[in-house]
Amino acid sequence: MDIAIPIFDRITALDAIGPYEVLSRLPGARIRWVAITPGPYRTDNRQLTLVADEPLSAVPHPEIIMVPGGFGTRALMTPNPLLDWLRAAHETSEWTTSVCTGSLLLGAAGILKGLEATTHWAALDTLAELGAKPTLKRVVEQGKIITAAGVSSGIDMGLVLAARIAGDEYAQTIQLGIEYDPQPPFRAGSPETAPPHIVAALRERTRARLAQSRA
Amino acid sequence: MDIAIPIFDRITALDAIGPYEVLSRLPGARIRWVAITPGPYRTDNRQLTLVADEPLSAVPHPEIIMVPGGFGTRALMTPNPLLDWLRAAHETSEWTTSVCTGSLLLGAAGILKGLEATTHWAALDTLAELGAKPTLKRVVEQGKIITAAGVSSGIDMGLVLAARIAGDEYAQTIQLGIEYDPQPPFRAGSPETAPPHIVAALRERTRARLAQSRA
Repeated sequence: MDIAIPIFDRITALDAIGPYEVLSRLPGARIRWVAITPGPYRTDNRQLTLVADEPLSAVPHPEIIMVPGGFGTRALMTPNPLLDWLRAAHETSEWTTSVCTGSLLLGAAGILKGLEATTHWAALDTLAELGAKPTLKRVVEQGKIITAAGVSSGIDMGLVLAARIAGDEYAQTIQLGIEYDPQPPFRAGSPETAPPHIVAALRERTRARLAQSRA
Repeated sequence: MDIAIPIFDRITALDAIGPYEVLSRLPGARIRWVAITPGPYRTDNRQLTLVADEPLSAVPHPEIIMVPGGFGTRALMTPNPLLDWLRAAHETSEWTTSVCTGSLLLGAAGILKGLEATTHWAALDTLAELGAKPTLKRVVEQGKIITAAGVSSGIDMGLVLAARIAGDEYAQTIQLGIEYDPQPPFRAGSPETAPPHIVAALRERTRARLAQSRA
């Protein structure tokens, strides 16, 4: 079972590694790290290298597509080979999934038109501009398309998908294997639970950072 | 603020990437991916490459040491340059931390003698053999030493440490930034909550895999 995860410049690492850590434990799973051009890519903060082992063309028909996000998604929303690959691979995939702003790429590829979908809470507006119906839910299933919210949500999405593929018991075994018994020290992980002034400040900082990365 | 994360063969990716995603968002954070020999290393399942940018000797005095785990830790528990580096770096570090079986390396370096510590639930016995007092808690603080439980616990540990370093509000901003509002689909993330037959089966599988990797 080929699970293709596209890599690109300014990716957010946990978006990719959360689902990878879960899905790689499925029976017969083979993670394929693909990119327009194979090679090393630096993450959004420039502090880590992730490696794309193969070109997109090496994996035209993955059973699972898993698109991570990051500030780098913004540079990939106009026509480019990654969007072409997504569109074509989605035609034959069993599951097409995303984490965080990875859904903006699914949207830009025309895959989310009229569908409910989610993304990082600070990017929900952009998702609407791409024809999707944005929702603040953590994991959104629409047939074979599953989108997940920001960064860490890919672990939850991975487990939901693992259960669909291999059954609840197998997914529970994976959850126990990665000891996913979350105990966040604060209740601040969603704009609905975080203190409003923290939400406002982070929204502003994200906006500034996006403007800077566009310039 | 240098945050050194050692990389080695057969590392578990999420052990490292969880805390990286949190701690890299601290003011002035500089993640240093170090190894006995710099270069690419394959993860435990052989399905991902993580890159160590620098030799251990390039970062003798990091403010934070963060040791990830993985099956590869077992080959590093007898005298070797990584244990020497850990021992020396711990003398001047502000925080010495681990995720999952990373604590076995802290233990093998003699850093956990007589202290409470944790690790992946299936490895607690080994931690005891190294002179630590194993506990099933998710994040264990003993002065400047913080150990975390299996794989995904590094996100919680990272947030606890972020709060110690930059205050609760800053840690909450990071939690909101990575949208850490966990919603696991099952209650199976700990041996105390997972169905007993799943715990038994996974414990047996882990034992077999360890025996295989020793052979």
